[in-house]
Amino acid sequence: MSTSAVNIRSAIAATNTQVEARAALDERYRVPCTEPEQWNPTLSVLLGHRSVRAFLPRSVEPWALQAAIAAAQSASSSLNLQLWSVVAVEDPARKARLCLGVADQRWIREAPLYLIWSADLSRHRRVAERISAHGDNLDPDNLDPLATALVDVSLAAQNAAVAFESLGLGLCYIGAVRLYQQELRDELALPSHVVPIFGMCVGYPDPDRPTGVKPRLPQDAVLHKERYDAAADAALIESYDARMADFQGKQRLKQVVWSDYSLRRLFNLHTRDGREAYNAALRNLSLAR
Amino acid sequence: MSTSAVNIRSAIAATNTQVEARAALDERYRVPCTEPEQWNPTLSVLLGHRSVRAFLPRSVEPWALQAAIAAAQSASSSLNLQLWSVVAVEDPARKARLCLGVADQRWIREAPLYLIWSADLSRHRRVAERISAHGDNLDPDNLDPLATALVDVSLAAQNAAVAFESLGLGLCYIGAVRLYQQELRDELALPSHVVPIFGMCVGYPDPDRPTGVKPRLPQDAVLHKERYDAAADAALIESYDARMADFQGKQRLKQVVWSDYSLRRLFNLHTRDGREAYNAALRNLSLAR
Repeated sequence: MSTSAVNIRSAIAATNTQVEARAALDERYRVPCTEPEQWNPTLSVLLGHRSVRAFLPRSVEPWALQAAIAAAQSASSSLNLQLWSVVAVEDPARKARLCLGVADQRWIREAPLYLIWSADLSRHRRVAERISAHGDNLDPDNLDPLATALVDVSLAAQNAAVAFESLGLGLCYIGAVRLYQQELRDELALPSHVVPIFGMCVGYPDPDRPTGVKPRLPQDAVLHKERYDAAADAALIESYDARMADFQGKQRLKQVVWSDYSLRRLFNLHTRDGREAYNAALRNLSLAR
Repeated sequence: MSTSAVNIRSAIAATNTQVEARAALDERYRVPCTEPEQWNPTLSVLLGHRSVRAFLPRSVEPWALQAAIAAAQSASSSLNLQLWSVVAVEDPARKARLCLGVADQRWIREAPLYLIWSADLSRHRRVAERISAHGDNLDPDNLDPLATALVDVSLAAQNAAVAFESLGLGLCYIGAVRLYQQELRDELALPSHVVPIFGMCVGYPDPDRPTGVKPRLPQDAVLHKERYDAAADAALIESYDARMADFQGKQRLKQVVWSDYSLRRLFNLHTRDGREAYNAALRNLSLAR
């Protein structure tokens, strides 16, 4: 190719990239955004995330799972403790048994791969038993090991999510698994001190049942410069309520006011069945017991 | 280009990609791995993660921060509650004051951008105050809102981390921030129910002070098929101890046995200064108080 042809091509590529960047930001915030000066395929994967709940029957290739778990293990881990583990379920009968609670979680049945991500202190407990170690001054009420494990498993799972999506796979997190501690313990043979935190349905998205990118709070509502400043909070949330209402209308979703509805959902975290077993499992996430 | 030239080019590209994939996996696990059948730039970013603690003076462009926060907000959020916020600190004086505790955290001073990621229930509390809502049956001992917020902030932060790394920036998480609740509250004007969980130093890596990719546990130690199986655990951890010793030698790091050392570190989570204030802040992460 001549130099001018190359220049034209890279100019077109740069323009396309800018257009893609703007489109990705606009779709996430539903407001006109300023163009970032650089963009790349990874940012497109990250910004393009949407929860997928409709899958093709095509199974997830073993090398894709291997790559995603390698990505998960590449995430930072506090003090390199690696306080997590994951169970990969592909057996259709087991997946059907894991459609727990929430009425129509057909996506767990439909997804060829269902991952259950756990905070895991059992590995270190086994080490402690092997070498007969015991900590002095262990405090059973200390939430630090629990919080550390929750962060670890979440960083790992999110890296896996990004890896899957980079390969054209789709997924959705299943928060409800935490409310079925005993059922999961039995079905997956989980030892004590392995606490399922969330599930993840993975598969190739069905193009005939697409989902939209969900708008999020304006960036100024979550990002504070130098010091926390909630002065504009009420106005920002009001604008988000309006954008969510618009999104719900376009996606033919139930119409709710985000701020009211999310408050009710937060209140509901206090009253759900399974909450007590989850709390007990979380409190048990310590080396002290 | 002729068709054969295109074919040769794509064959070379495919071969290069396979080589890159193998190298990335081998480096993460320090054992020969099977080649994945596909690879892409996002997987290279994910697998190539290493903690960066030496930065060039070049500042982080505003559009890069905007893109990273947009990526953070694109991560899944439980029930779309978005229970997190982040404070971006660039003021050198403030960064210097935030070098808390751990003796030589010069990387907080050196990084042009220091992000403090918090679990945040204050936003919903402000909504509740505005609309005079109050939940019935709120249980102050329920850890579910806390756990939900910890997962939310971690998924978001990890997406930001991947976004930064895709742009050539480097970073390291700072877990110690959680032990300085009062100091951060004062310095960053954090309202009640905003709990700093970790910091993140961000900047352009200094190529003259590179860091290595840290080896992780063998994949079989964290990934279980269909049911949890710890039968091979002792052998897998023993092999990892050996690989870590080798890595420490090559990187001229302190020589420790990973399994023993990480057990001691886990015990230490029970005895550190600042633990009580962190626990109090975590327990307070509820709408009930």
